[in-house]
Amino acid sequence: MRAVVTLLRGKRDTAIARGMTDQPNDHARHNEKMRRMKVARDRMQARRTLERGLLIVHTGNGKGKSSSAFGMAIRSIGWGMRVAILQFVKGTWETGERNFFADHPSDLVSFESMGEGFTWDTQDRARDIAAARRGWDRAKELILDPEIDFVILDELNIVLADDTLPSAEALAFLKDRPLTKHICITGRGARPELTEIADLVTEFGEVKHPFNAGFNAQKGVEY
Amino acid sequence: MRAVVTLLRGKRDTAIARGMTDQPNDHARHNEKMRRMKVARDRMQARRTLERGLLIVHTGNGKGKSSSAFGMAIRSIGWGMRVAILQFVKGTWETGERNFFADHPSDLVSFESMGEGFTWDTQDRARDIAAARRGWDRAKELILDPEIDFVILDELNIVLADDTLPSAEALAFLKDRPLTKHICITGRGARPELTEIADLVTEFGEVKHPFNAGFNAQKGVEY
Repeated sequence: MRAVVTLLRGKRDTAIARGMTDQPNDHARHNEKMRRMKVARDRMQARRTLERGLLIVHTGNGKGKSSSAFGMAIRSIGWGMRVAILQFVKGTWETGERNFFADHPSDLVSFESMGEGFTWDTQDRARDIAAARRGWDRAKELILDPEIDFVILDELNIVLADDTLPSAEALAFLKDRPLTKHICITGRGARPELTEIADLVTEFGEVKHPFNAGFNAQKGVEY
Repeated sequence: MRAVVTLLRGKRDTAIARGMTDQPNDHARHNEKMRRMKVARDRMQARRTLERGLLIVHTGNGKGKSSSAFGMAIRSIGWGMRVAILQFVKGTWETGERNFFADHPSDLVSFESMGEGFTWDTQDRARDIAAARRGWDRAKELILDPEIDFVILDELNIVLADDTLPSAEALAFLKDRPLTKHICITGRGARPELTEIADLVTEFGEVKHPFNAGFNAQKGVEY
């Protein structure tokens, strides 16, 4: 199965012959090309042998950073892994993801919100700092809990970006993290020191956004 | 709630004063700044009044395109919306997402795989074309079904990129889609004609990937 999965990131778009017709000769050429690609891919995959918990970062201004983490959560639950989701900034309002996990309780997942809404709404920095501290103390417990296989720290980047949570302290802890579980950190403006120590970093780039066309935030998509 | 949600994409990182200390004066300045930002944001939000089904595209070489769509699925289910997930390329192997939806059956979600694995594995273009056609026929049914609120066409971009599925036909249908539901299309190499008609496009950029450091694809993260 692994070889197949790896192909997800192959250079398929450029590799496949364009302008192919439905003629049998074209098909034969295509099939032979695919056979050669598979041999090459299998060889590459055979060199990949490492397996350990990954530090994953989702950042950038585009949409999808948190929802992608939730998607990994359900994938992991599907494999029987235990997942803990901790939300740092969202906290006071109703979201689809919170409803979902409330409606689908499972021994395999925990869902907690430590934030008190965005700082625009609270306008109280002392309270933001206290909430971030409570969140981080909880995050450390989850990361050190040997029963948990995947820890999602949603929007942690936001509270690290402006040192609402002291970033040096958090980064030192993450650098020495146990390597037995995956950790995914989301939020725009990831610190370079974090992406430096991460194993997997995706930058979510905004190409087109419905807000700019006058659309409201919509259920299921934005929250 | 809407005003709060909108803030997710505000220019928080650049707006927040850096180098702030824990002194009361700094806090007061910060809080006043946040108050002014909230007024500006609320005003901007008041101008956003449109609401309709969105055509969403997740593309790029980075990780997270499909998992982000699954994350939107659980958000939508959390709001009681009906979701249909159709996978075009993945099909023959076990995935966490498939296991999850099999283990958590719900009236609100359907999960179908139309693919027969990647073309590297089948090495049979005629079979790929037939599978893509069956998938597209099913996709049209789901999009036209008035009971369904959100349709996810996972990896559709892949079969459009090389016309395994005739792209002109699919794009014409999507252009005239019913505007009563969201549609999310994933996969690298999205056609420009598709991003042109889409409402929300995110480019998933690969900044750092564990494959490049010799790691295998891992459960929960990659599949």
